[in-house]
Amino acid sequence: MLQAWALEGIPEITAGADLVAVIADAAAGGLASGDILVVTSKIVSKAEGRIIAADDREDAITAETVRLVASRVTPNGSTTRIVQNPLGIVSAAAGVDASNTPQGTVLLLPIDPDASARALATGLRALLGVEVGVIVSDTLGRAWREGQTDSAIGAGGVQVFEDLRGQLDAEGRPLAVTMPCVADEIAAAAELVKGKTARLPVAVVRGRADLVGAIDLPGARSIVRALENDMFRLGADEAYAEGFAAGAASVRARP
Amino acid sequence: MLQAWALEGIPEITAGADLVAVIADAAAGGLASGDILVVTSKIVSKAEGRIIAADDREDAITAETVRLVASRVTPNGSTTRIVQNPLGIVSAAAGVDASNTPQGTVLLLPIDPDASARALATGLRALLGVEVGVIVSDTLGRAWREGQTDSAIGAGGVQVFEDLRGQLDAEGRPLAVTMPCVADEIAAAAELVKGKTARLPVAVVRGRADLVGAIDLPGARSIVRALENDMFRLGADEAYAEGFAAGAASVRARP
Repeated sequence: MLQAWALEGIPEITAGADLVAVIADAAAGGLASGDILVVTSKIVSKAEGRIIAADDREDAITAETVRLVASRVTPNGSTTRIVQNPLGIVSAAAGVDASNTPQGTVLLLPIDPDASARALATGLRALLGVEVGVIVSDTLGRAWREGQTDSAIGAGGVQVFEDLRGQLDAEGRPLAVTMPCVADEIAAAAELVKGKTARLPVAVVRGRADLVGAIDLPGARSIVRALENDMFRLGADEAYAEGFAAGAASVRARP
Repeated sequence: MLQAWALEGIPEITAGADLVAVIADAAAGGLASGDILVVTSKIVSKAEGRIIAADDREDAITAETVRLVASRVTPNGSTTRIVQNPLGIVSAAAGVDASNTPQGTVLLLPIDPDASARALATGLRALLGVEVGVIVSDTLGRAWREGQTDSAIGAGGVQVFEDLRGQLDAEGRPLAVTMPCVADEIAAAAELVKGKTARLPVAVVRGRADLVGAIDLPGARSIVRALENDMFRLGADEAYAEGFAAGAASVRARP
Protein backbone atom coordinates (compact mmCIF):
# COMPACT_ATOMS: atom_id res chain seq x y z
CA MET A 1 0.00 0.00 0.00
CA LEU A 2 1.32 3.38 -1.06
CA GLN A 3 0.17 6.44 0.90
CA ALA A 4 0.77 10.09 0.15
CA TRP A 5 -0.32 13.16 2.04
CA ALA A 6 0.63 16.82 2.18
CA LEU A 7 2.00 18.38 5.36
CA GLU A 8 -0.29 21.10 6.68
CA GLY A 9 0.89 24.34 8.27
CA ILE A 10 4.10 25.02 6.32
CA PRO A 11 4.55 28.79 6.76
CA GLU A 12 5.64 31.21 4.03
CA ILE A 13 9.35 30.45 3.54
CA THR A 14 11.90 33.26 3.38
CA ALA A 15 15.68 33.36 2.82
CA GLY A 16 17.57 31.57 5.57
CA ALA A 17 14.60 29.53 6.78
CA ASP A 18 15.56 26.26 8.47
CA LEU A 19 13.61 23.85 6.26
CA VAL A 20 14.60 20.85 8.37
CA ALA A 21 12.97 22.43 11.42
CA VAL A 22 9.97 23.66 9.41
CA ILE A 23 9.31 20.22 7.92
CA ALA A 24 9.88 18.45 11.25
CA ASP A 25 7.40 20.82 12.94
CA ALA A 26 4.80 20.32 10.23
CA ALA A 27 5.26 16.54 10.32
CA ALA A 28 4.63 16.66 14.06
CA GLY A 29 6.18 13.28 14.79
CA GLY A 30 4.33 11.64 11.92
CA LEU A 31 7.38 10.52 9.97
CA ALA A 32 8.75 6.96 9.95
CA SER A 33 11.85 5.33 8.51
CA GLY A 34 11.32 4.62 4.82
CA ASP A 35 9.14 7.70 4.26
CA ILE A 36 10.05 9.87 1.28
CA LEU A 37 9.51 13.62 1.57
CA VAL A 38 8.76 15.42 -1.67
CA VAL A 39 9.64 19.09 -1.31
CA THR A 40 8.59 21.61 -3.96
CA SER A 41 11.71 23.31 -5.32
CA LYS A 42 10.05 26.69 -4.81
CA ILE A 43 10.45 26.63 -1.04
CA VAL A 44 13.98 25.25 -1.28
CA SER A 45 14.86 28.16 -3.56
CA LYS A 46 13.22 30.66 -1.20
CA ALA A 47 15.09 29.24 1.82
CA GLU A 48 18.33 29.41 -0.16
CA GLY A 49 17.69 33.03 -1.11
CA ARG A 50 17.44 32.32 -4.83
CA ILE A 51 15.04 35.24 -5.30
CA ILE A 52 16.48 37.98 -7.50
CA ALA A 53 15.31 41.38 -8.66
CA ALA A 54 14.09 41.14 -12.25
CA ASP A 55 11.78 43.56 -13.95
CA ASP A 56 11.83 41.35 -17.01
CA ARG A 57 11.27 37.64 -16.53
CA GLU A 58 12.58 37.03 -20.07
CA ASP A 59 15.96 38.53 -19.13
CA ALA A 60 16.10 36.26 -16.10
CA ILE A 61 15.35 33.24 -18.32
CA THR A 62 18.15 34.28 -20.67
CA ALA A 63 20.55 34.55 -17.73
CA GLU A 64 19.63 31.03 -16.59
CA THR A 65 19.92 29.52 -20.06
CA VAL A 66 22.96 27.38 -20.83
CA ARG A 67 21.59 26.28 -24.20
CA LEU A 68 18.51 27.19 -26.20
CA VAL A 69 16.86 23.90 -27.19
CA ALA A 70 13.82 25.23 -29.01
CA SER A 71 11.66 28.32 -29.20
CA ARG A 72 8.38 29.22 -30.78
CA VAL A 73 6.17 32.29 -30.92
CA THR A 74 2.82 31.48 -29.34
CA PRO A 75 -0.51 32.60 -30.80
CA ASN A 76 -0.66 35.42 -28.23
CA GLY A 77 2.66 36.78 -29.51
CA SER A 78 4.83 35.70 -26.59
CA THR A 79 7.78 33.36 -27.18
CA THR A 80 7.98 29.96 -25.55
CA ARG A 81 11.57 28.95 -24.94
CA ILE A 82 12.62 25.39 -24.14
CA VAL A 83 16.08 25.67 -22.65
CA GLN A 84 18.72 23.68 -20.85
CA ASN A 85 19.52 25.21 -17.49
CA PRO A 86 22.79 24.97 -15.52
CA LEU A 87 21.55 21.72 -13.95
CA GLY A 88 21.22 20.17 -17.41
CA ILE A 89 17.45 20.07 -17.04
CA VAL A 90 15.51 20.83 -20.22
CA SER A 91 12.37 22.81 -19.43
CA ALA A 92 10.35 25.84 -20.38
CA ALA A 93 11.66 29.09 -18.91
CA ALA A 94 14.74 27.49 -17.28
CA GLY A 95 12.77 27.05 -14.07
CA VAL A 96 12.53 30.81 -13.63
CA ASP A 97 9.41 31.31 -11.50
CA ALA A 98 7.55 34.60 -11.31
CA SER A 99 4.48 33.32 -9.44
CA ASN A 100 4.29 33.53 -5.65
CA THR A 101 7.15 36.02 -5.69
CA PRO A 102 7.02 39.74 -4.83
CA GLN A 103 6.46 42.10 -7.76
CA GLY A 104 9.71 42.83 -9.60
CA THR A 105 11.39 39.63 -8.47
CA VAL A 106 11.72 36.11 -9.80
CA LEU A 107 12.75 32.86 -8.17
CA LEU A 108 15.55 30.74 -9.62
CA LEU A 109 15.97 26.99 -9.09
CA PRO A 110 18.25 25.84 -6.28
CA ILE A 111 21.91 25.90 -7.36
CA ASP A 112 22.33 22.19 -6.55
CA PRO A 113 19.00 20.48 -5.78
CA ASP A 114 20.72 17.14 -5.09
CA ALA A 115 22.84 18.82 -2.42
CA SER A 116 19.71 20.51 -1.05
CA ALA A 117 17.88 17.18 -0.90
CA ARG A 118 20.81 15.44 0.77
CA ALA A 119 21.11 18.23 3.35
CA LEU A 120 17.39 17.99 4.14
CA ALA A 121 17.52 14.19 4.41
CA THR A 122 20.64 14.33 6.58
CA GLY A 123 19.11 16.97 8.82
CA LEU A 124 15.76 15.21 9.20
CA ARG A 125 17.45 11.86 9.92
CA ALA A 126 19.59 13.47 12.61
CA LEU A 127 16.78 15.52 14.15
CA LEU A 128 14.04 12.88 14.10
CA GLY A 129 16.02 9.66 14.21
CA VAL A 130 14.17 8.20 11.24
CA GLU A 131 15.76 7.21 7.92
CA VAL A 132 13.82 9.28 5.40
CA GLY A 133 14.58 10.11 1.80
CA VAL A 134 14.03 13.52 0.20
CA ILE A 135 13.06 14.44 -3.35
CA VAL A 136 13.09 18.05 -4.53
CA SER A 137 10.42 18.40 -7.21
CA ASP A 138 9.67 20.81 -10.02
CA THR A 139 6.81 20.97 -12.49
CA LEU A 140 8.00 20.13 -16.01
CA GLY A 141 6.39 20.03 -19.43
CA ARG A 142 7.13 17.17 -21.79
CA ALA A 143 7.80 16.56 -25.45
CA TRP A 144 4.87 15.00 -27.37
CA ARG A 145 2.40 15.26 -24.49
CA GLU A 146 0.33 18.23 -23.35
CA GLY A 147 0.28 19.43 -19.77
CA GLN A 148 2.84 19.17 -17.03
CA THR A 149 3.85 16.64 -14.39
CA ASP A 150 5.94 17.04 -11.26
CA SER A 151 9.38 15.46 -11.60
CA ALA A 152 12.45 14.99 -9.43
CA ILE A 153 15.21 17.58 -9.84
CA GLY A 154 16.95 16.69 -6.58
CA ALA A 155 17.22 13.51 -4.51
CA GLY A 156 18.93 12.56 -1.27
CA GLY A 157 18.89 9.17 0.42
CA VAL A 158 16.51 7.68 -2.12
CA GLN A 159 16.97 5.67 -5.31
CA VAL A 160 15.98 7.63 -8.41
CA PHE A 161 15.82 4.55 -10.63
CA GLU A 162 14.57 1.08 -9.88
CA ASP A 163 17.27 -0.75 -11.76
CA LEU A 164 15.69 -3.92 -13.11
CA ARG A 165 18.40 -4.67 -15.61
CA GLY A 166 19.03 -8.39 -15.62
CA GLN A 167 15.74 -9.16 -13.87
CA LEU A 168 13.18 -11.46 -15.44
CA ASP A 169 9.47 -11.07 -16.12
CA ALA A 170 6.78 -13.48 -14.88
CA GLU A 171 7.64 -15.81 -17.79
CA GLY A 172 11.33 -15.75 -16.95
CA ARG A 173 12.19 -13.56 -19.93
CA PRO A 174 14.41 -10.45 -19.50
CA LEU A 175 12.35 -7.34 -18.82
CA ALA A 176 12.01 -4.91 -21.70
CA VAL A 177 11.59 -1.95 -19.38
CA THR A 178 14.72 -1.81 -17.32
CA MET A 179 14.86 1.52 -15.49
CA PRO A 180 11.59 2.90 -14.11
CA CYS A 181 12.34 6.42 -12.91
CA VAL A 182 10.75 5.96 -9.50
CA ALA A 183 11.88 9.40 -8.35
CA ASP A 184 9.78 11.04 -11.06
CA GLU A 185 6.88 8.71 -10.26
CA ILE A 186 7.09 9.61 -6.57
CA ALA A 187 7.20 13.34 -7.41
CA ALA A 188 4.13 12.82 -9.62
CA ALA A 189 2.25 10.99 -6.87
CA ALA A 190 3.09 13.80 -4.45
CA GLU A 191 1.69 16.45 -6.82
CA LEU A 192 -1.68 14.75 -6.59
CA VAL A 193 -1.88 15.69 -2.90
CA LYS A 194 0.05 18.99 -2.98
CA GLY A 195 -1.89 20.60 -5.78
CA LYS A 196 -1.03 23.96 -7.21
CA THR A 197 -3.34 26.49 -5.60
CA ALA A 198 -3.00 25.66 -1.89
CA ARG A 199 0.19 26.37 0.01
CA LEU A 200 1.13 22.71 0.43
CA PRO A 201 4.76 22.50 -0.70
CA VAL A 202 5.73 19.29 1.12
CA ALA A 203 4.24 15.81 0.83
CA VAL A 204 5.10 12.50 2.44
CA VAL A 205 5.08 9.34 0.33
CA ARG A 206 4.99 6.14 2.38
CA GLY A 207 5.15 2.57 1.15
CA ARG A 208 8.40 2.34 -0.83
CA ALA A 209 10.90 2.09 2.03
CA ASP A 210 12.87 -0.27 -0.21
CA LEU A 211 13.98 2.79 -2.19
CA VAL A 212 15.34 4.68 0.83
CA GLY A 213 19.00 4.25 1.63
CA ALA A 214 22.38 5.91 1.84
CA ILE A 215 22.45 9.70 1.63
CA ASP A 216 25.00 9.53 -1.18
CA LEU A 217 22.91 7.40 -3.56
CA PRO A 218 23.05 8.87 -7.10
CA GLY A 219 21.01 12.08 -7.23
CA ALA A 220 18.45 13.39 -9.69
CA ARG A 221 21.34 14.71 -11.79
CA SER A 222 21.68 11.12 -12.98
CA ILE A 223 18.18 11.34 -14.53
CA VAL A 224 19.32 14.03 -16.96
CA ARG A 225 20.20 12.39 -20.27
CA ALA A 226 23.67 13.21 -21.58
CA LEU A 227 23.52 15.52 -24.59
CA GLU A 228 25.31 13.04 -26.86
CA ASN A 229 22.69 10.39 -26.06
CA ASP A 230 19.72 12.70 -26.59
CA MET A 231 17.89 12.29 -29.89
CA PHE A 232 15.90 15.44 -29.02
CA ARG A 233 18.77 17.66 -27.93
CA LEU A 234 17.51 20.33 -30.37
CA GLY A 235 14.05 21.34 -31.57
CA ALA A 236 13.04 20.14 -35.02
CA ASP A 237 12.88 23.67 -36.48
CA GLU A 238 16.26 24.60 -35.00
CA ALA A 239 17.94 21.42 -36.24
CA TYR A 240 16.39 21.88 -39.69
CA ALA A 241 17.71 25.46 -39.86
CA GLU A 242 21.21 24.34 -38.86
CA GLY A 243 21.08 21.62 -41.49
CA PHE A 244 19.77 23.99 -44.15
CA ALA A 245 22.63 26.43 -43.60
CA ALA A 246 25.20 23.64 -43.62
CA GLY A 247 23.70 22.10 -46.76
CA ALA A 248 23.72 25.40 -48.62
CA ALA A 249 27.30 26.09 -47.53
CA SER A 250 28.42 22.62 -48.64
CA VAL A 251 27.29 23.32 -52.21
CA ARG A 252 28.74 26.84 -52.34
CA ALA A 253 32.06 25.46 -51.12
CA ARG A 254 32.41 23.17 -54.13
CA PRO A 255 34.96 24.25 -56.73
CA MET B 1 -4.68 11.32 1.72
CA LEU B 2 -3.90 9.46 -1.48
CA GLN B 3 -3.77 5.67 -1.35
CA ALA B 4 -2.68 3.22 -4.02
CA TRP B 5 -2.55 -0.55 -3.97
CA ALA B 6 -2.32 -3.36 -6.49
CA LEU B 7 -5.09 -5.93 -6.83
CA GLU B 8 -3.88 -9.42 -5.99
CA GLY B 9 -4.95 -12.56 -7.81
CA ILE B 10 -5.44 -11.30 -11.36
CA PRO B 11 -5.06 -14.48 -13.45
CA GLU B 12 -3.17 -14.73 -16.74
CA ILE B 13 -5.38 -12.90 -19.27
CA THR B 14 -6.18 -14.46 -22.64
CA ALA B 15 -8.17 -13.28 -25.67
CA GLY B 16 -11.83 -12.76 -24.85
CA ALA B 17 -11.34 -12.51 -21.11
CA ASP B 18 -14.01 -10.47 -19.31
CA LEU B 19 -11.78 -7.86 -17.64
CA VAL B 20 -14.72 -6.26 -15.84
CA ALA B 21 -15.47 -9.55 -14.10
CA VAL B 22 -11.77 -10.27 -13.50
CA ILE B 23 -11.16 -6.86 -11.91
CA ALA B 24 -14.37 -7.01 -9.88
CA ASP B 25 -13.41 -10.45 -8.55
CA ALA B 26 -9.90 -9.30 -7.64
CA ALA B 27 -11.25 -6.16 -5.97
CA ALA B 28 -13.51 -8.37 -3.86
CA GLY B 29 -15.90 -5.59 -2.88
CA GLY B 30 -13.07 -3.26 -2.02
CA LEU B 31 -13.91 -0.52 -4.53
CA ALA B 32 -15.67 2.74 -3.67
CA SER B 33 -17.05 5.59 -5.72
CA GLY B 34 -14.24 7.96 -6.66
CA ASP B 35 -11.66 5.18 -6.95
CA ILE B 36 -9.52 5.20 -10.09
CA LEU B 37 -8.41 1.86 -11.51
CA VAL B 38 -5.12 1.88 -13.38
CA VAL B 39 -4.99 -1.07 -15.76
CA THR B 40 -1.76 -2.01 -17.52
CA SER B 41 -2.34 -1.88 -21.28
CA LYS B 42 -0.75 -5.33 -21.61
CA ILE B 43 -3.77 -7.14 -20.13
CA VAL B 44 -6.22 -4.99 -22.10
CA SER B 45 -4.36 -5.94 -25.28
CA LYS B 46 -4.38 -9.61 -24.31
CA ALA B 47 -8.11 -9.55 -23.54
CA GLU B 48 -8.73 -7.82 -26.88
CA GLY B 49 -6.71 -10.44 -28.73
CA ARG B 50 -4.03 -8.00 -29.87
CA ILE B 51 -1.40 -10.75 -29.89
CA ILE B 52 -0.04 -11.46 -33.36
CA ALA B 53 2.42 -13.92 -34.81
CA ALA B 54 5.71 -12.16 -35.46
CA ASP B 55 9.06 -13.86 -35.82
CA ASP B 56 10.68 -10.46 -36.10
CA ARG B 57 9.74 -7.82 -33.55
CA GLU B 58 11.31 -5.16 -35.81
CA ASP B 59 8.84 -6.00 -38.57
CA ALA B 60 5.97 -5.67 -36.11
CA ILE B 61 7.27 -2.26 -35.02
CA THR B 62 7.45 -1.15 -38.65
CA ALA B 63 3.85 -2.29 -39.18
CA GLU B 64 2.71 -0.27 -36.15
CA THR B 65 4.63 2.85 -37.16
CA VAL B 66 2.70 5.78 -38.59
CA ARG B 67 5.72 8.08 -38.57
CA LEU B 68 9.38 7.57 -37.73
CA VAL B 69 10.30 10.35 -35.28
CA ALA B 70 13.91 9.43 -34.60
CA SER B 71 16.24 6.46 -34.75
CA ARG B 72 19.72 5.68 -33.57
CA VAL B 73 22.03 2.70 -33.63
CA THR B 74 22.85 1.69 -30.08
CA PRO B 75 26.34 0.68 -28.91
CA ASN B 76 25.30 -2.98 -29.09
CA GLY B 77 24.43 -2.59 -32.77
CA SER B 78 20.66 -2.67 -32.47
CA THR B 79 18.59 0.30 -33.65
CA THR B 80 16.40 2.27 -31.27
CA ARG B 81 13.39 3.71 -33.06
CA ILE B 82 11.22 6.45 -31.61
CA VAL B 83 7.99 6.34 -33.58
CA GLN B 84 4.48 7.71 -33.61
CA ASN B 85 1.92 4.90 -33.46
CA PRO B 86 -1.66 4.93 -34.80
CA LEU B 87 -2.83 6.45 -31.50
CA GLY B 88 -0.54 9.42 -32.03
CA ILE B 89 1.60 8.33 -29.08
CA VAL B 90 5.34 8.86 -29.52
CA SER B 91 7.30 6.04 -27.94
CA ALA B 92 10.06 3.54 -28.49
CA ALA B 93 9.01 0.45 -30.45
CA ALA B 94 5.44 1.71 -31.11
CA GLY B 95 4.28 -0.10 -27.98
CA VAL B 96 5.08 -3.46 -29.56
CA ASP B 97 5.68 -5.76 -26.60
CA ALA B 98 7.59 -9.02 -26.89
CA SER B 99 7.90 -9.74 -23.17
CA ASN B 100 5.36 -11.94 -21.39
CA THR B 101 4.15 -13.21 -24.77
CA PRO B 102 4.58 -16.72 -26.23
CA GLN B 103 7.65 -17.27 -28.40
CA GLY B 104 7.08 -16.05 -31.96
CA THR B 105 4.37 -13.60 -31.00
CA VAL B 106 4.21 -9.96 -30.00
CA LEU B 107 1.53 -7.89 -28.29
CA LEU B 108 0.23 -4.69 -29.88
CA LEU B 109 -1.40 -1.83 -27.98
CA PRO B 110 -5.20 -1.76 -27.75
CA ILE B 111 -6.74 -0.30 -30.91
CA ASP B 112 -8.56 2.40 -28.91
CA PRO B 113 -7.41 2.54 -25.27
CA ASP B 114 -9.87 5.34 -24.48
CA ALA B 115 -12.73 3.13 -25.66
CA SER B 116 -11.26 0.23 -23.66
CA ALA B 117 -11.05 2.39 -20.53
CA ARG B 118 -14.61 3.70 -20.99
CA ALA B 119 -15.94 0.16 -21.48
CA LEU B 120 -14.19 -1.01 -18.31
CA ALA B 121 -15.45 1.98 -16.29
CA THR B 122 -18.98 1.55 -17.62
CA GLY B 123 -18.95 -2.18 -16.88
CA LEU B 124 -17.53 -1.80 -13.37
CA ARG B 125 -19.98 1.00 -12.52
CA ALA B 126 -22.90 -1.15 -13.67
CA LEU B 127 -21.67 -4.36 -12.02
CA LEU B 128 -20.57 -2.89 -8.68
CA GLY B 129 -22.75 0.20 -8.38
CA VAL B 130 -19.78 2.44 -7.63
CA GLU B 131 -18.67 5.39 -9.79
CA VAL B 132 -15.07 4.50 -10.61
CA GLY B 133 -12.72 5.90 -13.25
CA VAL B 134 -10.35 3.81 -15.35
CA ILE B 135 -6.92 4.66 -16.75
CA VAL B 136 -5.15 2.33 -19.18
CA SER B 137 -1.41 2.77 -18.66
CA ASP B 138 1.71 2.07 -20.64
CA THR B 139 5.38 2.49 -19.80
CA LEU B 140 6.95 5.30 -21.83
CA GLY B 141 10.42 6.74 -22.18
CA ARG B 142 10.93 10.49 -22.31
CA ALA B 143 12.97 13.07 -24.14
CA TRP B 144 15.82 14.58 -22.09
CA ARG B 145 15.42 12.21 -19.13
CA GLU B 146 16.68 8.67 -18.65
CA GLY B 147 14.44 5.83 -17.60
CA GLN B 148 10.73 5.30 -18.06
CA THR B 149 7.53 6.24 -16.26
CA ASP B 150 4.04 4.82 -16.57
CA SER B 151 1.68 7.17 -18.38
CA ALA B 152 -2.00 7.22 -19.36
CA ILE B 153 -2.79 6.02 -22.90
CA GLY B 154 -6.49 5.52 -22.19
CA ALA B 155 -8.98 7.10 -19.80
CA GLY B 156 -12.66 6.61 -19.07
CA GLY B 157 -14.74 8.51 -16.51
CA VAL B 158 -11.77 10.42 -15.15
CA GLN B 159 -10.27 13.84 -15.90
CA VAL B 160 -6.90 13.59 -17.61
CA PHE B 161 -5.97 17.22 -16.92
CA GLU B 162 -6.60 19.32 -13.86
CA ASP B 163 -7.45 22.49 -15.71
CA LEU B 164 -6.27 25.36 -13.53
CA ARG B 165 -6.40 27.99 -16.25
CA GLY B 166 -7.73 31.18 -14.76
CA GLN B 167 -7.07 30.05 -11.21
CA LEU B 168 -4.89 32.06 -8.86
CA ASP B 169 -1.94 31.14 -6.70
CA ALA B 170 -1.72 31.75 -2.95
CA GLU B 171 -0.78 35.39 -3.65
CA GLY B 172 -3.74 35.86 -5.97
CA ARG B 173 -1.56 35.84 -9.08
CA PRO B 174 -2.50 33.67 -12.11
CA LEU B 175 -0.87 30.25 -11.96
CA ALA B 176 2.05 29.68 -14.30
CA VAL B 177 1.40 25.95 -14.49
CA THR B 178 -2.06 25.58 -15.89
CA MET B 179 -2.61 21.98 -16.87
CA PRO B 180 -1.17 19.29 -14.60
CA CYS B 181 -1.61 15.98 -16.42
CA VAL B 182 -3.18 14.18 -13.47
CA ALA B 183 -3.84 11.05 -15.55
CA ASP B 184 -0.11 10.59 -16.14
CA GLU B 185 0.57 11.32 -12.45
CA ILE B 186 -2.00 8.71 -11.39
CA ALA B 187 -0.50 6.16 -13.79
CA ALA B 188 2.93 6.93 -12.32
CA ALA B 189 1.69 6.51 -8.74
CA ALA B 190 0.12 3.18 -9.72
CA GLU B 191 3.41 1.89 -11.16
CA LEU B 192 4.97 2.30 -7.73
CA VAL B 193 2.66 -0.44 -6.40
CA LYS B 194 2.34 -2.58 -9.55
CA GLY B 195 6.03 -2.96 -10.26
CA LYS B 196 7.37 -4.72 -13.30
CA THR B 197 8.34 -8.21 -12.20
CA ALA B 198 5.23 -9.37 -10.31
CA ARG B 199 2.00 -10.12 -12.12
CA LEU B 200 0.14 -7.11 -10.70
CA PRO B 201 -1.43 -5.41 -13.74
CA VAL B 202 -4.20 -3.49 -11.94
CA ALA B 203 -3.91 -0.89 -9.19
CA VAL B 204 -6.49 1.19 -7.34
CA VAL B 205 -5.77 4.85 -6.65
CA ARG B 206 -8.02 6.38 -3.99
CA GLY B 207 -8.16 9.98 -2.83
CA ARG B 208 -8.86 12.03 -5.94
CA ALA B 209 -12.59 11.37 -6.32
CA ASP B 210 -12.86 14.96 -7.53
CA LEU B 211 -11.35 13.78 -10.83
CA VAL B 212 -13.91 11.02 -11.41
CA GLY B 213 -16.96 11.92 -13.47
CA ALA B 214 -18.85 11.30 -16.68
CA ILE B 215 -17.76 8.34 -18.81
CA ASP B 216 -17.42 10.62 -21.83
CA LEU B 217 -14.89 13.03 -20.31
CA PRO B 218 -12.06 13.72 -22.78
CA GLY B 219 -9.83 10.65 -23.03
CA ALA B 220 -6.06 10.20 -22.98
CA ARG B 221 -6.06 10.96 -26.72
CA SER B 222 -6.33 14.59 -25.63
CA ILE B 223 -2.93 14.31 -23.93
CA VAL B 224 -1.21 13.69 -27.26
CA ARG B 225 0.20 16.98 -28.55
CA ALA B 226 -0.86 17.87 -32.08
CA LEU B 227 2.01 17.53 -34.56
CA GLU B 228 1.85 21.20 -35.57
CA ASN B 229 2.27 22.23 -31.94
CA ASP B 230 5.16 19.88 -31.25
CA MET B 231 8.60 21.46 -31.23
CA PHE B 232 10.07 17.94 -31.02
CA ARG B 233 8.02 16.29 -33.76
CA LEU B 234 11.26 15.07 -35.34
CA GLY B 235 14.61 13.96 -33.93
CA ALA B 236 17.45 16.48 -34.13
CA ASP B 237 19.52 14.32 -36.52
CA GLU B 238 16.52 13.68 -38.78
CA ALA B 239 15.53 17.35 -38.89
CA TYR B 240 19.14 18.38 -39.58
CA ALA B 241 19.36 15.91 -42.47
CA GLU B 242 16.11 17.21 -43.97
CA GLY B 243 17.39 20.75 -43.66
CA PHE B 244 20.77 19.87 -45.14
CA ALA B 245 19.19 18.36 -48.26
CA ALA B 246 16.84 21.31 -48.66
CA GLY B 247 19.65 23.80 -48.16
CA ALA B 248 21.85 22.11 -50.75
CA ALA B 249 18.97 21.93 -53.22
CA SER B 250 18.14 25.59 -52.70
CA VAL B 251 21.63 26.63 -53.82
CA ARG B 252 21.74 24.23 -56.77
CA ALA B 253 18.38 25.56 -57.93
CA ARG B 254 19.71 29.11 -58.31
CA PRO B 255 20.26 30.28 -61.90
